[in-house]
Amino acid sequence: MRRSRSRRNRPSCRDTVSPGAPFTTRKIPAYAMLNYAALARIEDQADWILSKIGVEFRGDHEALELIAASGAQVDGERVRFEPGHARNICATAPSEFKLHSRDPARTVTLGGDNIVLMPGYGSPFVSDLTNGRRYATLEDFRNFVKLTYSSPALHHSGGTVVEPTDVPVNKRHLDMLLAHLTLSTKPFMGSVTAPYRAHDNIEMARLVFGRDFMNRNAVMQANINVNSPLVFDDTMSSALRIYAEANQCVCVSPAIFAGAMGPLSPAAVAAQTLAEAMVGIALTQLVRPGCPVVMGSFHSSMNLRTGALTFGSAEANMVTMALSQLGRRLRVPVRSGGGQITASNAPDGQAMQDSTGAMWSTLLSGAHQVWHAAGWLEGGLVMSYEKFIMDVDHCGAMLKLLQGFEVDDEAFGRDAYLETRPGENFLSTSHTLRHYRSANFEPQIPDAGPFETWTENGALTSDQRATARWRQMLDNYQQPEINPGIQTALEDFVSERKAGVPDQWY
Amino acid sequence: MRRSRSRRNRPSCRDTVSPGAPFTTRKIPAYAMLNYAALARIEDQADWILSKIGVEFRGDHEALELIAASGAQVDGERVRFEPGHARNICATAPSEFKLHSRDPARTVTLGGDNIVLMPGYGSPFVSDLTNGRRYATLEDFRNFVKLTYSSPALHHSGGTVVEPTDVPVNKRHLDMLLAHLTLSTKPFMGSVTAPYRAHDNIEMARLVFGRDFMNRNAVMQANINVNSPLVFDDTMSSALRIYAEANQCVCVSPAIFAGAMGPLSPAAVAAQTLAEAMVGIALTQLVRPGCPVVMGSFHSSMNLRTGALTFGSAEANMVTMALSQLGRRLRVPVRSGGGQITASNAPDGQAMQDSTGAMWSTLLSGAHQVWHAAGWLEGGLVMSYEKFIMDVDHCGAMLKLLQGFEVDDEAFGRDAYLETRPGENFLSTSHTLRHYRSANFEPQIPDAGPFETWTENGALTSDQRATARWRQMLDNYQQPEINPGIQTALEDFVSERKAGVPDQWY
Repeated sequence: MRRSRSRRNRPSCRDTVSPGAPFTTRKIPAYAMLNYAALARIEDQADWILSKIGVEFRGDHEALELIAASGAQVDGERVRFEPGHARNICATAPSEFKLHSRDPARTVTLGGDNIVLMPGYGSPFVSDLTNGRRYATLEDFRNFVKLTYSSPALHHSGGTVVEPTDVPVNKRHLDMLLAHLTLSTKPFMGSVTAPYRAHDNIEMARLVFGRDFMNRNAVMQANINVNSPLVFDDTMSSALRIYAEANQCVCVSPAIFAGAMGPLSPAAVAAQTLAEAMVGIALTQLVRPGCPVVMGSFHSSMNLRTGALTFGSAEANMVTMALSQLGRRLRVPVRSGGGQITASNAPDGQAMQDSTGAMWSTLLSGAHQVWHAAGWLEGGLVMSYEKFIMDVDHCGAMLKLLQGFEVDDEAFGRDAYLETRPGENFLSTSHTLRHYRSANFEPQIPDAGPFETWTENGALTSDQRATARWRQMLDNYQQPEINPGIQTALEDFVSERKAGVPDQWY
Repeated sequence: MRRSRSRRNRPSCRDTVSPGAPFTTRKIPAYAMLNYAALARIEDQADWILSKIGVEFRGDHEALELIAASGAQVDGERVRFEPGHARNICATAPSEFKLHSRDPARTVTLGGDNIVLMPGYGSPFVSDLTNGRRYATLEDFRNFVKLTYSSPALHHSGGTVVEPTDVPVNKRHLDMLLAHLTLSTKPFMGSVTAPYRAHDNIEMARLVFGRDFMNRNAVMQANINVNSPLVFDDTMSSALRIYAEANQCVCVSPAIFAGAMGPLSPAAVAAQTLAEAMVGIALTQLVRPGCPVVMGSFHSSMNLRTGALTFGSAEANMVTMALSQLGRRLRVPVRSGGGQITASNAPDGQAMQDSTGAMWSTLLSGAHQVWHAAGWLEGGLVMSYEKFIMDVDHCGAMLKLLQGFEVDDEAFGRDAYLETRPGENFLSTSHTLRHYRSANFEPQIPDAGPFETWTENGALTSDQRATARWRQMLDNYQQPEINPGIQTALEDFVSERKAGVPDQWY
């Protein structure tokens, strides 16, 4: 083996290297688990559900009127669509569109070969290894916005990343959007929990982006959960209409635990998800044809003996892969029901086993947008600071994997074979020296050294090693610049809205 | 939501349910990461390596003579093959064959749509959470043979599952094969570390299967590691010839850490692995045309700044996926370089993140045989009892996933929609009651209940929960029946061989 003349040339400090993988597209093909016949059968079943059973819009007469006017059959609150009708209405939705940032470099594209990863959504609790599990606060919310902004592998700031439970329920949407708009430049989501909150968030975005720009371009997303099985409640369908009218991106997410909110089989969950999503997307297009949409899903499995929810199961991962295919056939961007999800109560082996498998099914099958890509623990009840860090590492690795690899002459390194003989080491070859800095994605957490070193350093498991990393990231966080006038306008808006109404805590 | 009339019909004891997923085939397509052009370029590079650089057989004149007689160019110990020549010699190897068990129900098929999972290989240490990390003993070896036998998701007993370091080096192969042959009925591997050991193991197998049967059928496997880059040492090539002469299965495994034993790029590692494997497989066919082979690989990446070995990296997983494709084009079964591998020092989040990703790349890409599917820790230095259990759970889940799902009328559960109305729960529908017992793969470890229950039960992480499981499995282990005459003959063979030579400890 040659002497390591290379060592002298190597930087001792890894800070000279980019700390992540800011890839935003896929270059390897999407995996097609199902063949055409299977996809067609699932689509037929979705049509059967919509024509024979239908979907209910409860308490939203405007939605029912729009749907009736489209030619669907409306019977009280129940709407039924002839086979193919809902899909036809969806056809005006764009297959690919931009979600704009106030920093053009952070604008993302949904659809096509693009990938948009974002943190978890909706957890009422947070945990870290120092302070344990506790209700999430606005400080936690702001921390996760900062951590997401500081993570190259995450492209989107998310929405209700955690519930800021120390803020009155009727004012949380103001503080959350203020954080997204001022602490980050990554795209974000707005509130859907009441019509006035949706309006408030759209108004705040208009202070930054301008009404005209937003009338032509999406700068925010709203997540419309279906009250599965087969029900849209008034709150959700109203929010859907508000965001669609504003030409902002609506993600329609059926929420199905197999066996509870739908039949227990993967085929049935896929079909029902497609059916419910098509109805929601159809409504967006009836409100405003061409409005940008995402076909979402939130589905998983249960232990049908104990009733415990499970995440990252084989059955759920298959549904995830099927929905990526079904969404592409609907020609809209797909938000996967996967992500780095788990029912585990700790950021342990199970947590990462569940999360990693769910993420593979999500990304390999061609989903465009991945919620819950970082931090999710305990079935979504908890955002874990440590798991966030471990998940972001894996996001970076998966984004690297989605690039595939070069097969050109330089990649094959023929000169290295000519420099060495059989049995000799390649570490000091010119080829290695040319490429070693950029050859591999380097995660922040895993490398703990050999057992002896690791033991000397306290035998820290990967979650324990992650603690220092999130603290360091918060310490190093630098707020992006924002026009002072806009900052003031946003703060004034929030103050005024808060002052106008008494606090509500439920 | 309806009352749960279902609960009365549900068995309270999960023992009535099959404890695993004994699937042995794949029903979903293999993922093709690379297109035809990329595969052809890699194959061209393998031919370039073999024609321009060549491979050395050090100290094995019989191998050199066989290769020279095939028309390859032999220059001292260096052999070079014209493009296409090595591949042509490989053409007599079967694309699919059986590895027979003494229990026909345990016979496995290598190649085609079949999957064969097996435990880790070669660890000098074991660890469990009670007794810590320590040198492996024969008792540990026997324990892992028993645990593997008791795991429906593992199809093969493995080889040197752990090094029985309390047995003299020159006698370990006797005790190991005695354990595989008597404590299990799953297929197994024989020793390759010295010619007489290979002969001993083949003789022992003949005591069970008979010489004639083994002359026509494979009952055991040998792993021939290439001393990469581009060297076969005498020990390995001799063992290769011994097993090939006996018509037993030879797995040829190049061993490449990218940047050290080959250039650092995935394309180069894939090409060099293919080149080295083709040479080894060609030698088997020159020894005995038609001899069953497996194209193996053992490859991974390094942190090129610190020199630390890494497992489950994006770059290594891409090589794994490429090699599955390349092996299928060579028309031989593929042993993946993946499996549930990790550099982690503990069965923690990193361990399962690495392992799960490597397993997805392995199984989704269509590898036929997976070594290191359970237990591997610390870059293979350690077999962990707890990780073994967690890995086996994931093996079962992945085997379930590889089955895909039904899209027939029964799967869609239309009767359940007719029994319910929108918004109603499906848990009590006839469809759920018909299928809930078998709908989902049920892992042994994950389900820890809600946070409060989990905390009351000691807040055990998944590795901690696994301890009880492996102990229970060892307690419940029952030795399979064996003809007493064969058992005695095996024991006598081992005693005689041991008595004939002094102990060697290195």
